[in-house]
Amino acid sequence: MILPDTGANQADRLIVVGGVAAGMSAAARAKRTDPDIEVVVFEKTAHVSYGACGFPFLIAGTVKDPLDLVAIDAETFRRDRGIDVRTDHEVVELDPVSKIVTAQNRHSGESVTLNYSKLVLSTGGSPRTLGLQGIDRPNVFSLRSLEDAISLKGYIDRTSPKRAVIVGAGYIGLEMAEAFAAHGIAVTIVQRSHRLLGAIDDEISEVVAHELDRNGVHVVYGAQLSRLVGDGTDGPVSAVVCDDVAGPIPTDLVLVAVGVGADSKLAQQAGIRLGATGAIAVNWKQETNVPDIYAAGDCAEVINVVTGKPVHIPLGTTANKQGRIAGENAAGGYGTFKGVVGTAIVKVFDLEMARTGLSLSQTEAAGRPAKAVSITAGSRSKYFPGYSDITVRLVFEPTRGTLLGGQIVGGDGAGMRIDTLAATLHAGMTVEDLSRLDLAYAPPFAPVWDPLLIAAGAALKEL
Amino acid sequence: MILPDTGANQADRLIVVGGVAAGMSAAARAKRTDPDIEVVVFEKTAHVSYGACGFPFLIAGTVKDPLDLVAIDAETFRRDRGIDVRTDHEVVELDPVSKIVTAQNRHSGESVTLNYSKLVLSTGGSPRTLGLQGIDRPNVFSLRSLEDAISLKGYIDRTSPKRAVIVGAGYIGLEMAEAFAAHGIAVTIVQRSHRLLGAIDDEISEVVAHELDRNGVHVVYGAQLSRLVGDGTDGPVSAVVCDDVAGPIPTDLVLVAVGVGADSKLAQQAGIRLGATGAIAVNWKQETNVPDIYAAGDCAEVINVVTGKPVHIPLGTTANKQGRIAGENAAGGYGTFKGVVGTAIVKVFDLEMARTGLSLSQTEAAGRPAKAVSITAGSRSKYFPGYSDITVRLVFEPTRGTLLGGQIVGGDGAGMRIDTLAATLHAGMTVEDLSRLDLAYAPPFAPVWDPLLIAAGAALKEL
Repeated sequence: MILPDTGANQADRLIVVGGVAAGMSAAARAKRTDPDIEVVVFEKTAHVSYGACGFPFLIAGTVKDPLDLVAIDAETFRRDRGIDVRTDHEVVELDPVSKIVTAQNRHSGESVTLNYSKLVLSTGGSPRTLGLQGIDRPNVFSLRSLEDAISLKGYIDRTSPKRAVIVGAGYIGLEMAEAFAAHGIAVTIVQRSHRLLGAIDDEISEVVAHELDRNGVHVVYGAQLSRLVGDGTDGPVSAVVCDDVAGPIPTDLVLVAVGVGADSKLAQQAGIRLGATGAIAVNWKQETNVPDIYAAGDCAEVINVVTGKPVHIPLGTTANKQGRIAGENAAGGYGTFKGVVGTAIVKVFDLEMARTGLSLSQTEAAGRPAKAVSITAGSRSKYFPGYSDITVRLVFEPTRGTLLGGQIVGGDGAGMRIDTLAATLHAGMTVEDLSRLDLAYAPPFAPVWDPLLIAAGAALKEL
Repeated sequence: MILPDTGANQADRLIVVGGVAAGMSAAARAKRTDPDIEVVVFEKTAHVSYGACGFPFLIAGTVKDPLDLVAIDAETFRRDRGIDVRTDHEVVELDPVSKIVTAQNRHSGESVTLNYSKLVLSTGGSPRTLGLQGIDRPNVFSLRSLEDAISLKGYIDRTSPKRAVIVGAGYIGLEMAEAFAAHGIAVTIVQRSHRLLGAIDDEISEVVAHELDRNGVHVVYGAQLSRLVGDGTDGPVSAVVCDDVAGPIPTDLVLVAVGVGADSKLAQQAGIRLGATGAIAVNWKQETNVPDIYAAGDCAEVINVVTGKPVHIPLGTTANKQGRIAGENAAGGYGTFKGVVGTAIVKVFDLEMARTGLSLSQTEAAGRPAKAVSITAGSRSKYFPGYSDITVRLVFEPTRGTLLGGQIVGGDGAGMRIDTLAATLHAGMTVEDLSRLDLAYAPPFAPVWDPLLIAAGAALKEL
């Protein structure tokens, strides 16, 4: 059914494509901004508004029920918020000239066509697959939708695998190593580069590598995966073969976690401009280059405040923020999203690792002059139980000492110290400014000289 | 012995009066800045460089050996750093005209007289006593020196008291309530005002009060202590009598923890200018108004960066920082200490409470226009084990929304979030700036919308 174009009334329908973090934030905010607007959300899977960052903890068994990961379910959105949520509907066509969207029910195959006055694209990300031969075999998984997570969890519960290969040592790869280990599964991580995690420096990644090693997780570095082998052409994978690595790696299960690209297919087909990153280009109102079409979340770019340049950093917290702004503006309000500094945090067994801003290797890749220092210091007063080491790395501009980034690894409250560094980046502080911060001190929490202050002191000596 | 005035050579002796946090920081830094300088430290007690903030944990039994609280002992300072540390020596006279100091050995009564070229006053604080009748009875304690802490611990170990009265509900009072409770001692806190802690607002102090209650600590508010009664005039206290409180409170032990004033007696006698707070007035090089005399630590004022005004906030971390600067400058280097924002953190049983900047009551007392909001939100993703409530209160200027202060209370990593607020205060950020911070998110650490961001959002609505 194509609704008639009724002029002014047409300004009353917002269609949101994709109902996870950004999409449902946009829908909810739009409805709060203008309760009279009609909001329709098309979500291609069975669930909306789930916390994808919780998948590893669902699979580990820390979170028991998959539905615990759903913040607000579709029925509640319909009933309490008046949002017309249509799950299992994939938008297959977008015509930005006629302002019409076509969605298909993935079970019945039925199509629905609706026009819109405003549209929010929140199509999310799609896991990279490396064009791998054998990727469709039944025990090869990726983790993008809640259905993916439920499927992997079900496979583990049914088959009690003894060995797993994880392809990629990013955040998800590391969290999943711990999740598999919780089931007693022997884990091998196959990593293309010679270090863990992309946007951190060796000094920090080595500490994480040691923690993996201590927990029996085997990492093969510099491994170029060539194929997944198994029974026939579509039987389960029984081994993973890498170039330059002696012998196939036998396994009962493969998780591909080599990162997430923007799912910008629909946008591209509709002629919406993509940025150099391949994600949808947006301004700070989350507007695309096509009138009345907004984009938010993992499908969209975001400004890195430290460089002023658009980047693609798909993270749930950013998706929520961008979604809110898109919904606010689409409903006639006004909001801006000024960007991120690239803050991220991950738990790896007993370690906390966090980063923000630029790593030294990122500054080098960008040809930007920078220095870095790393220090290791106590997490709290030495005499207090629970004391452990925290390593802090600061990256800074070498003349004035303007902070460009920070990385932290350690136990015992190490990770959340990153928020303080994130604030210094937003504020454009120098290492001297950091060294002067009046940070909290009490024996159960921090030493007299917090590791952040010690790191700043070390950086000051390099200026 | 008075050393002869040898002109240029006179520039070579630094005397430090008081060898705890500020004093030993000054001595060590001076020696590093100029290895040729002679540094003499007079400390009136038997120990130097101890962490006074560790006393409650020593008494609780968390820290086993009192000497664990000593960062570096006197002998090590002498041997490894070439610092002439003289413990058990109280400086009884200071002549800033002749530049001579007289110290007395408290055991032998012998005097030593030394001239100085530079002097650092780090005489610390002295516990307020309220001029209480009965304060000298044997089971009445205060906590200032390591000897005080050892003496109180010894008393508990020897006599196994059943009941304790703590006078004052400041940081030390609350930490000591927990320390006493760890020994199974029934604790009553007698508090003059109608709330806990000085520089936090009721919304936060009520959460702390509930935690004390939950742990069986009884608090008597609005209690004006009148006397400590016991056998004869000098026998142990058996009860505490307050005006306006029905009946005496029986007890086996009294801890007076009503705060610490600056120990500025020596400075005052020598004609050194004190500020309105009663502590020694200093500039940002830690210089007093008398040439060649510096002051640092609990005896000195400090600038509150939020108001630009000098305050007296005696805290170990500030003492260390001021001491370093005093030592640097006294030895011919150059350093400045620009001030604090009043950050403090305390553990109260299972709660973490932290504050920074100004409370709303402080802005009201100063006649400064301000608003405040308080929110309560989850410490991490709701589905993640360990989830608990965090209450965040923000105080801000009511037109532009410039942040003036923050308070946080909760379990599970609540407290150290204060460092991020401290950074925003140093940077002069507004609540809008705070709402835009790219803070870390992962289920084990924080929810998608960190409580700090939720609080900033609530504050924005009040502008």
